[in-house]
Amino acid sequence: MDSMRHLYPVILAGGSGTRFWPLSRHLYPKQLLRIIGDETLIQQTMRRVLSCANPEQVIISTNPGQADSIRVQLGEWKAALKDNYVVEPVGRNTAPAIALVAAELLLRDPHAMMLVLPADHVVTGEKAFKAAVELGVQLAEQGHLVTFGIKPTRPETGYGYIQPDRRKSLGKKGRLTGHPVARFVEKPNRAKAAQYLKNGHFYWNSGMFLWKAAAILEEIQQHQPQLAKAIQRVHALMASGADLGLIEAAYKKVPSVSIDNGVMEQSANAAMIPVGFGWSDVGNWSSLEEVAPRDKSGNVVSGRVIDMDSTNSVLYADRRVVATIGLSDMVVVDTPDATLICPKSRSQDVKQMVEILKRQGAPEHLEHVTVFRPWGSYTVLEEGPGYKVKRVTVNPGGRLSLQLHHKRSEHWVVIAGTARVTRGEELLDLRVGQSTAIPVETPHRLENLGTETLHIIEVQNGPYLGEDDIVRLQDDYGRLNRAR
Amino acid sequence: MDSMRHLYPVILAGGSGTRFWPLSRHLYPKQLLRIIGDETLIQQTMRRVLSCANPEQVIISTNPGQADSIRVQLGEWKAALKDNYVVEPVGRNTAPAIALVAAELLLRDPHAMMLVLPADHVVTGEKAFKAAVELGVQLAEQGHLVTFGIKPTRPETGYGYIQPDRRKSLGKKGRLTGHPVARFVEKPNRAKAAQYLKNGHFYWNSGMFLWKAAAILEEIQQHQPQLAKAIQRVHALMASGADLGLIEAAYKKVPSVSIDNGVMEQSANAAMIPVGFGWSDVGNWSSLEEVAPRDKSGNVVSGRVIDMDSTNSVLYADRRVVATIGLSDMVVVDTPDATLICPKSRSQDVKQMVEILKRQGAPEHLEHVTVFRPWGSYTVLEEGPGYKVKRVTVNPGGRLSLQLHHKRSEHWVVIAGTARVTRGEELLDLRVGQSTAIPVETPHRLENLGTETLHIIEVQNGPYLGEDDIVRLQDDYGRLNRAR
Repeated sequence: MDSMRHLYPVILAGGSGTRFWPLSRHLYPKQLLRIIGDETLIQQTMRRVLSCANPEQVIISTNPGQADSIRVQLGEWKAALKDNYVVEPVGRNTAPAIALVAAELLLRDPHAMMLVLPADHVVTGEKAFKAAVELGVQLAEQGHLVTFGIKPTRPETGYGYIQPDRRKSLGKKGRLTGHPVARFVEKPNRAKAAQYLKNGHFYWNSGMFLWKAAAILEEIQQHQPQLAKAIQRVHALMASGADLGLIEAAYKKVPSVSIDNGVMEQSANAAMIPVGFGWSDVGNWSSLEEVAPRDKSGNVVSGRVIDMDSTNSVLYADRRVVATIGLSDMVVVDTPDATLICPKSRSQDVKQMVEILKRQGAPEHLEHVTVFRPWGSYTVLEEGPGYKVKRVTVNPGGRLSLQLHHKRSEHWVVIAGTARVTRGEELLDLRVGQSTAIPVETPHRLENLGTETLHIIEVQNGPYLGEDDIVRLQDDYGRLNRAR
Repeated sequence: MDSMRHLYPVILAGGSGTRFWPLSRHLYPKQLLRIIGDETLIQQTMRRVLSCANPEQVIISTNPGQADSIRVQLGEWKAALKDNYVVEPVGRNTAPAIALVAAELLLRDPHAMMLVLPADHVVTGEKAFKAAVELGVQLAEQGHLVTFGIKPTRPETGYGYIQPDRRKSLGKKGRLTGHPVARFVEKPNRAKAAQYLKNGHFYWNSGMFLWKAAAILEEIQQHQPQLAKAIQRVHALMASGADLGLIEAAYKKVPSVSIDNGVMEQSANAAMIPVGFGWSDVGNWSSLEEVAPRDKSGNVVSGRVIDMDSTNSVLYADRRVVATIGLSDMVVVDTPDATLICPKSRSQDVKQMVEILKRQGAPEHLEHVTVFRPWGSYTVLEEGPGYKVKRVTVNPGGRLSLQLHHKRSEHWVVIAGTARVTRGEELLDLRVGQSTAIPVETPHRLENLGTETLHIIEVQNGPYLGEDDIVRLQDDYGRLNRAR
């Protein structure tokens, strides 16, 4: 099938990370989590699309706060994905993100087709997935904007629904038939949702799409002309290598619109394929039980949990001990700096809790104590007045930027591996148990020339210890003009 | 009243720390916790007995694992209590502990009377407490073994009960009357407990006692002759300044017996005073609500808890965020290395949970990440293969032993205060942001000559990092031959 060669999977990886707090954070959302299985959701999504396209054709749409972590997680395909990250300076909902990728793809391939997938869904059944995509490609060739409909299994009020026009067939593949969309329905109330479930003519809108890049751009132009114009300006700036500040300023002017509201619901060309694969958007902690394995008491358990007599609960620990006795239908999630406890029935209110934390300026809504960087990661072990203690991990071959700090001195003690340290004019090689001190204003760099991962303990001293007191003099990862 | 001059309050501070896990630990039991109010339970107990006696007359009965922490907490009375710690090498229940203190007191004062109090009870009403003690002294002068009975308020199955012979009065003070004990009753089942409550003739055995030291020794001799003999041997060894190993070996031969079972229930001289003060043994997390203030939703809340809609729950956090949504009648206790979640109705099973942790060899049953020492404290921030990171706090004037390690090197970075460091032949004074490295086998010492508390970050490197790799060359706190 020739059109498959023009298929570009587009992974939307800009989620907000509120509903799986405290495991997810604003800067570490759900797609980066190992929620089920050995791989994170974005890794699973990447592996899934490789049944339909080469890795060189996969586009990752994300934002600056998440790009580093995603690059680390998709390191297996580093070379193939090198030029395939489309980084929005700020989030503007799905329509601008899709428009920007469509504009970029049209430059690369005038026949480009886009298979748009959220990075954080769980899909089971690879063959059924591939079959649906292949039928989608057929329909997209005819100019349709293809959606994938999921047969409802419960009266869900959290999703939009699609009613297909089942009298008309737009194409067939095996047992699958594509139909025109009769209508899109907003998230229903409980009674409506029950009626849709019983009726059998309604499908959940999975948020996955397939269309020609040219077709979606045309429809965006038609239904959201202001948005289309603003995105063209941004894309031109990006293509010309303009300053990031300029691009960000232009992007901030793009209206925030979802592809469903702004385009699909307006379009005369919407189609739907009722799919045969298993699907979950794992929307909150309680929905985890749809996809994760449960023990014989019905619990989903992970990490260092010691339980007596709990049933049907979600119990997530890490390295700390979580001791649970006699819980039923509860959610307990423990992370190094925050713990959540609520009945499963209140899982959807986690979002509200994160809002409270955000209003309070609590750092626990924003990021984890462990933060990933292109060269490795760091974990804040403790901070207090005038000091901060970190464990810093540098991958083999990785090196931090050549940098200096105005407000703090640092001590480094090697606890594993070997460190190549630049300190002013000196070059030092430090082994386990050796250390060095970096005074204020001294240019310095940490580098791992070895084959083993380097771990150091860093003790910072100074009146201000923010991550933004970094003056980067040289950087391997293009971060000279970025604060973080 | 002359006999009051011979009254020696004896605080039993050897609790096992299982029922308030994870806030309490084997080496950090309930009496050391600030469970209610600004002071810990042992501090409150100490302050309470000062209404009856001078601090020089207060005896603290404890064990080696808790002695340092208790000394720190009772630092306000350091000089007065200097020679008043009776440290049992191992726990042998209450009868041996009491016998040992009685033997010691008889040496100091042949007319000594003992007011025996657990360190971890909550008592309200100082005047009523003092009145009960004064009547107790009257009865003890007549040779009675006095117990203090609490009027039951619920059908409690966790306590022993006492039935007084109310036809006979042994003495009166104000509205209080002392009676002979008709009988002691073991912990009853639910039905019996309900009957005792209704009947009105039964009292809870509070575990507080008053007697002449000579009288209790005589009764122990009579009812537990083997125990009496073994304790005499231990006391003679202690008095002669014998080696700790010898004392420990002798103490291990003492039979483990409770004063209730072993003596009180056998004695013909037991008396009971029905008391007028408020009392709780705060036996588990759910009993906290009897004594701690509750918010308008009925929750007992402490630390960094962010709650939505919870009711009648016990929510204990520390510096980490604990986010709770819609809990009712639950217990949540978060500590730096362990978290407990259970319904209030399962609070008594925490003990069983601690047993599980102990069987698994989990360090979280034993002690906290912060450990108190006579010179200050240390907190383990992280440990991993080949390294450990601690924050070490040294009180003004405090100094650690002059020591060396066979297996590890250490780095110290000062984060607050000024450190006087001995390193081999050198003496260094390090200010904030300065550091030093201590090689393996090098004698070293950390000391705080300043008036501000000293804080350092210590990074240890080595193949073995146990607390027992400390060779003490000189110590201010008499710990040369102790492992910890």
